[in-house]
Amino acid sequence: MIRAAIVGASGYTGGELLRLLLAHPQVEVTQITSETYAGQYAYFVHPNLRGHTELRFTRLADGSTGPSGRDCEALAPCDLLFLALPHGHAMERIEDLAALAERIVDLSADFRLREAADYARWYGREHPAPEWLTRFVYGLPELYRDQLVGARYASGTGCNAAVTLLALWPLYRRGLVREAVVEVKVGSSEGGHRPSPASHHPERAGVVRSYAPTGHRHLAELIQELNLDPQQPGLHFSVTSVGIVRGALATCHCLLHEELDEREAWRIYREDYGAEPFVRLVRAKRGIHRYPEPKILSGANYCDIGFVADPGQRRLVVIAAIDNLMKGAAGNAVQTMNVMYGWPETLGLEFPGLHPI
Amino acid sequence: MIRAAIVGASGYTGGELLRLLLAHPQVEVTQITSETYAGQYAYFVHPNLRGHTELRFTRLADGSTGPSGRDCEALAPCDLLFLALPHGHAMERIEDLAALAERIVDLSADFRLREAADYARWYGREHPAPEWLTRFVYGLPELYRDQLVGARYASGTGCNAAVTLLALWPLYRRGLVREAVVEVKVGSSEGGHRPSPASHHPERAGVVRSYAPTGHRHLAELIQELNLDPQQPGLHFSVTSVGIVRGALATCHCLLHEELDEREAWRIYREDYGAEPFVRLVRAKRGIHRYPEPKILSGANYCDIGFVADPGQRRLVVIAAIDNLMKGAAGNAVQTMNVMYGWPETLGLEFPGLHPI
Amino acid sequence: MIRAAIVGASGYTGGELLRLLLAHPQVEVTQITSETYAGQYAYFVHPNLRGHTELRFTRLADGSTGPSGRDCEALAPCDLLFLALPHGHAMERIEDLAALAERIVDLSADFRLREAADYARWYGREHPAPEWLTRFVYGLPELYRDQLVGARYASGTGCNAAVTLLALWPLYRRGLVREAVVEVKVGSSEGGHRPSPASHHPERAGVVRSYAPTGHRHLAELIQELNLDPQQPGLHFSVTSVGIVRGALATCHCLLHEELDEREAWRIYREDYGAEPFVRLVRAKRGIHRYPEPKILSGANYCDIGFVADPGQRRLVVIAAIDNLMKGAAGNAVQTMNVMYGWPETLGLEFPGLHPI
Amino acid sequence: MIRAAIVGASGYTGGELLRLLLAHPQVEVTQITSETYAGQYAYFVHPNLRGHTELRFTRLADGSTGPSGRDCEALAPCDLLFLALPHGHAMERIEDLAALAERIVDLSADFRLREAADYARWYGREHPAPEWLTRFVYGLPELYRDQLVGARYASGTGCNAAVTLLALWPLYRRGLVREAVVEVKVGSSEGGHRPSPASHHPERAGVVRSYAPTGHRHLAELIQELNLDPQQPGLHFSVTSVGIVRGALATCHCLLHEELDEREAWRIYREDYGAEPFVRLVRAKRGIHRYPEPKILSGANYCDIGFVADPGQRRLVVIAAIDNLMKGAAGNAVQTMNVMYGWPETLGLEFPGLHPI
Repeated sequence: MIRAAIVGASGYTGGELLRLLLAHPQVEVTQITSETYAGQYAYFVHPNLRGHTELRFTRLADGSTGPSGRDCEALAPCDLLFLALPHGHAMERIEDLAALAERIVDLSADFRLREAADYARWYGREHPAPEWLTRFVYGLPELYRDQLVGARYASGTGCNAAVTLLALWPLYRRGLVREAVVEVKVGSSEGGHRPSPASHHPERAGVVRSYAPTGHRHLAELIQELNLDPQQPGLHFSVTSVGIVRGALATCHCLLHEELDEREAWRIYREDYGAEPFVRLVRAKRGIHRYPEPKILSGANYCDIGFVADPGQRRLVVIAAIDNLMKGAAGNAVQTMNVMYGWPETLGLEFPGLHPI
Repeated sequence: MIRAAIVGASGYTGGELLRLLLAHPQVEVTQITSETYAGQYAYFVHPNLRGHTELRFTRLADGSTGPSGRDCEALAPCDLLFLALPHGHAMERIEDLAALAERIVDLSADFRLREAADYARWYGREHPAPEWLTRFVYGLPELYRDQLVGARYASGTGCNAAVTLLALWPLYRRGLVREAVVEVKVGSSEGGHRPSPASHHPERAGVVRSYAPTGHRHLAELIQELNLDPQQPGLHFSVTSVGIVRGALATCHCLLHEELDEREAWRIYREDYGAEPFVRLVRAKRGIHRYPEPKILSGANYCDIGFVADPGQRRLVVIAAIDNLMKGAAGNAVQTMNVMYGWPETLGLEFPGLHPI
Repeated sequence: MIRAAIVGASGYTGGELLRLLLAHPQVEVTQITSETYAGQYAYFVHPNLRGHTELRFTRLADGSTGPSGRDCEALAPCDLLFLALPHGHAMERIEDLAALAERIVDLSADFRLREAADYARWYGREHPAPEWLTRFVYGLPELYRDQLVGARYASGTGCNAAVTLLALWPLYRRGLVREAVVEVKVGSSEGGHRPSPASHHPERAGVVRSYAPTGHRHLAELIQELNLDPQQPGLHFSVTSVGIVRGALATCHCLLHEELDEREAWRIYREDYGAEPFVRLVRAKRGIHRYPEPKILSGANYCDIGFVADPGQRRLVVIAAIDNLMKGAAGNAVQTMNVMYGWPETLGLEFPGLHPI
Repeated sequence: MIRAAIVGASGYTGGELLRLLLAHPQVEVTQITSETYAGQYAYFVHPNLRGHTELRFTRLADGSTGPSGRDCEALAPCDLLFLALPHGHAMERIEDLAALAERIVDLSADFRLREAADYARWYGREHPAPEWLTRFVYGLPELYRDQLVGARYASGTGCNAAVTLLALWPLYRRGLVREAVVEVKVGSSEGGHRPSPASHHPERAGVVRSYAPTGHRHLAELIQELNLDPQQPGLHFSVTSVGIVRGALATCHCLLHEELDEREAWRIYREDYGAEPFVRLVRAKRGIHRYPEPKILSGANYCDIGFVADPGQRRLVVIAAIDNLMKGAAGNAVQTMNVMYGWPETLGLEFPGLHPI
C-alpha cells in the first residue's frame, strides 16, 4: 500500500486517475490539488465520484484559504506523485515536486521527449529543466516495460501517439514500412475541460472537423519512438475531430516495401503482442465488430488492434482504438505505476468497457 | 422591397434571421451589427452563408475602427430593424433605435410582457421604458394576426413559450383545462452562442439534464397569453436539456375538467389551426412518425402538433414540436414581418425541413 | 461461490449481466444461452468482453448442433438461473426452468405483477402459470429487502418503473401526493437488440420522440407498488425517446395535498434512503451537476435522486436518473442476488460510472 | 416546365430528390414509385414533406392494388425519369424505362462505369445491358458540363467518389500526385433506409467504425475518372463510419512529386473552381471554421474544399466536405438536370445549409 497524490486533479485526466486510484487495492489517495477548485469536494467536478470519496481539492503550493473560504492544506510528501497539470507547468517546478515524493508519473508532455531541442521545435519554448529529460522513462509499458520496473520517473504518452505507436511498432521495428499516412479520429475530451468557442456544444456536436491536418505535436513522439528522420519522417499524421466525447481511432495506411499478407501480419502482431495484457488483436470475418472501435472501450484500458491488407497494393491498413482518457492517459499511468512497483500489471484496470453505449 | 437591418447579428438567432432575409424576395439586408465581430465577414461566424453574402458586421453605435482594424459604419436608418440583442439591451436604447426605422421586430424578451411589474418579477429588474410595452404586439401571428397587420412594433416570443402556447391555446381558450404539466425538451442552441462550462461539449453531449424544473421565465408569457392567475397559474412548466442542437418538444399533460375524446380534440384543433400555414396537425396510427418531433423540422417554420387522449383519465397529452431558431425565433419573426407588411405569410419560409438528418 | 447460468444472454440485458457476473467474486458463470447465436463466442455479440471470457452460447432446450456447426450442450442444472428472455417466454416454461436450479432471478416482466388479471389487461394475454406469481418477490431491494433475503424467486423491475418508484416512494407511502405526472426520457437500448425501422440510426439519431404518451406497461407496476386505484391511478405516465443509448431520467411532477418545502423533502428522502447503498441524493446549488442525470451513470448501479419545490404551488419536482441496463435491469438483478444470498449488497457493483462520456 | 417522375422514391435519395423537385420552378412531379409503400402518402415515409405534397407512391410495373388496398396506377410516360433504385435494378429494365421518357438521370451505380468488365470486377456481376454504358454521361457537372448539355442520359456519382474526385481533380489532371491516401468519414444515411444490425441505433450511435478500409466500390469511379492504372492505382481509399446521419468528409493526403506551396495550390484550385457555383474554396486562418466540414452543409449542394501543405514533406492535405444526399446524390442530380435542360445551374438548389445544427 502506497500513498499517492494527484497534482492537477480537476481536469479530465486527473479525474479519471482519481477514479482508478480510489478503487486500486495498493493505493491510498492522500491529496488532490486544484487551484481553481481548492476547498471543493472532488465530486463537484467529477460527479460520478459522489459517494466514493470525501476528498477535497487542495492547493498545490501553499496552505492558504481556498475560494470556498475553507483552509486548504498544501501538498504534503507522499510515495508517488501523479502530475496531471497542463503542458508546461510540471517542467517549471520539477525540482520542488521531486522533493515531495520518491517517484513521479507525469501525464503531461513535459518529459516525453528526450532531446531538449525538440521542445523548442514542437512546443515553441525552451525546456527549463533539460537535465530531467533523460531521468524519465517513456511510460508506455508495451515498449519500455523493462526500463519501467523500479524506475523512479515516468512520463505519460500523447494519447494519439500511444494509439499510433502501438499500431505501427511491430511493422516499423521490422523495417517493413516505406511510408505511412495516419489519420486519427478523436473525441472532444482530448481538448480538456476548459470551454472554448470550438468546444461549445452547438459548434462541436456532430462535427467531422479537421483539427490538425499537419504539424500535430504528437508526431514528435512518433519520430522519437520509431526512430524516424526528423526532417523527413515519411510518416504523415493528421487528426480529425469527431462527435464523440471519449475515444480515438487511428487508421494507419502503411505503404510497405514488400507485399505482406494478412496471415504474416497476424503472426507478427501476435509475436509482439500475444502476451500483452492490454493489447487485443481484433479481427472477425463476420458481424458488426470486425475491426477495433473506441465505442466499446469507454473506461477500459485496452488498445485494440486490427488490420487488413490490400492485396497487390503493398498496403496494410492497421486500425487501432483506445479510450483516450484510459490507455491514452490515466489508465496507462496506472499500468505504468503497476509496472514500476512490480504489482500485477492489470491491478485496478480490470474493467472491460460497456456495450452498448 | 424594403431595407432591413439586423441589430445583434452574430448570435444564433441573428444568423438564422440573416439566412432567411438574404433569400427573402421583399427584403434587402442593408446592415448587420455586432460589437464583437465588427469588421468581420458575416460568414466568419455563420459559415453556412459563405458565398451568399459579402456583408460585414458593423458596430451598433458608432463608426469607429473595429477589431479587424477596418472602419465600421454605424447603423444607418432603414425601413425595418430586427433586434436580436441579448435580453435587456433593447429596452435600454429603444428610443434611439426607434428613431432609425419606422418598424421594429424585437426578438428578445424586452417587450413581450405588457405589465412593467412582470419584468421586476421574472427578469429581476425594472423596465426602463415601460411606456413602450403596450406599443409592441406580441408577435405570434396565430394569436395576434389581426393586430400585427400594419403594426409598427412587434415582439418575438420565447421559444418554449411559443411551442407551448400553440399546443395549449385551443384547450385553454375553451376553458377545458383544470391543471397542466408541461415538459419542454430543448437543444443546446437555446443557450446562445457564448461558451460556458455547461455548454462544453464533453459536459453537454448526450445529456438529459434538468435545466429549469421550476421558475422558467417563459412561464410569464404563458400566464399572460393564457390569462392565468399569476399566483396560482395551475400550469407547471419545466425545461429539460437534451443532446440535440436545434429543436424543442413540448409534452403537455392537460388534466381536463371533463373527458375529451380524440375525435373531439381533433375537431377543436382543426377548427383553430386548419387554415394556419405553419401549424401542422400530426397523427398517424402506424409508422415511425406518429407524433410531432423536432428532428424533421430543422430549418422549417412549422409548429407540428399532435395529441393522444388517455381514456377515462380526463387527460389529453398534447405534443408540439418546433425548430427553436425558426418558429421559436427567426422564422417566426419573418412570418411576423410578412403579416405586418401584408405580404403572403409564407414568403421566404417555404423550406420543409430535412429527413433524415 | 455459486454456479449461475444466464438464459437469454445475447440481448443487451443478458450481456450486461454477463459482464457483471464474470467479475463477481461469488459467482461462476457456467452457461449462457442463445438460440440465435448458439455455438458463437459471447464476445461475438458482446465485443467488450473479448479477452474476458471464452464462453460460447448454448441452446436453452437441447444439445443439437448450433448454427456454427458446433455441438451445443443443453442447459444444465446449476445453483441460480438468471432469465433474460423476451417477455412471455419465461412464463411458458417456468416449471422446466425451476427444475434446473434452486433459485431464479427473472428480468422479464413475466412475474412482476401479482395479479394474473393484470397480464390480460396490460400485456394482452392470459398468464399460463398464475400460481407462480406469488412465489416471486418484486426484485427492488430498496422496497423488498427483507422479503428478498433467502428468497428463491425474484422478478426484475421495469426500468422505467424502477426509476419512478424510487423517486416517488417516499412521498406516496406518506400519502403526500394528490396527483402526479411523470415524464421518463429514455435511450435506445431500452428497445432491445433487434433492429427495426424505428431503431434505424438515421431515423433514431437525435430524436426527441414521444414513445408512449399514455398506456405504458410499466404503469402496471407503479399501480401495484404504490397501491393506486387501477382505474383512476392519478399517476400520469409518459415515456419519450431521446438520442442516447443508455440511461433514463424520470421527471416527476408531484402535485401535493399540502405545501412541502425542500428542507422537509430532504429530511423525508434522507430518512428513507440515507442508508441505501445505491440511492444517492443529489442537489448542488451551484455548478453544472445540480440535478441527477443519466450521463454520468453508465455502468453504475445508482439511482440518483434530486428534487426542487415550486414555492406556493404545492408542487415538488422529483428528478431521478438511472442506467437502464444497470439499476434498471442487470445491476439491480445482481444486487437482488446479493441480498438473496446474504452477501454484501454492493458486491460486484462498485463501478462508479464515467465522466466525461 | 417539364413532367418528371421518381422511380424508387421511398429511399433517402428518392426522398431528398422529391423534396428538391417539389420546390423546383421548372418541374412538375407526376409520379413517385415504391413497391413497399405503394398506395401510401409520400409523407408517411418522408415526414418533412407533410403539407408539401399529396402524392402517393405507385408501383413501378403495374396498376394492381397496393398494400393499402388502394388502386395504384403504373408508371406513365413523362419527360424525365429519375431512377433512385437500389444498385442492379435499373440495369435490368433500362429498355422499358427508356421507353417511358426521353431523358433519364440514374442515381444508382448501374451506368457510372464505362467498361462492362468493371461491373464484374467491382460489383460481382455481369452487366445485362452493356450497350447502354456509353450512352450515359458521368453526371458530375464540374467535370462533364459540356457533355451534359442536351444529353439524354446521365448517371449519378458515388457520393464518396464525388467528394474525392472534386478534391483531387485539379492535382491529378496536372500530374502532380505521386500517390494518395484518402480517408472518407461518412454518416449513416449512406447505408440507405433499410434497418440492419449494423444500423441499429445502440450499435451505430457514436461509432468511429472502419467500414471499408480497402476495396470500396467507389474506387472504381476514381480509377476511371482520374485515369489511374486499374491494377496499381496508387490511390488508397478507405471509408470510416462516424456518428452523424448526413455528410461526408474526405481527407486526401496527396504525396506529391514536387513541393507545392499553399499559394500555388490556391491558384490551381481557383483556376479550376473559381467559376463553379457549387464548389467553395475554404480556408480561414482563424476561428472555428478553418476547413470544410459537413456539419454546415445539411441540405446544401456545395462541395467545400480546403487544403493545407506540409512544408518540406511534399504533402498536400486536401479536405473536402459534402452532404452525401445532396451533392453526393439528389442535389447533384438536380444540378445535372439543370445542365441537361440549359436552365440556370443553381435553380432549386439555393439553400445554404443551417448553422448551428
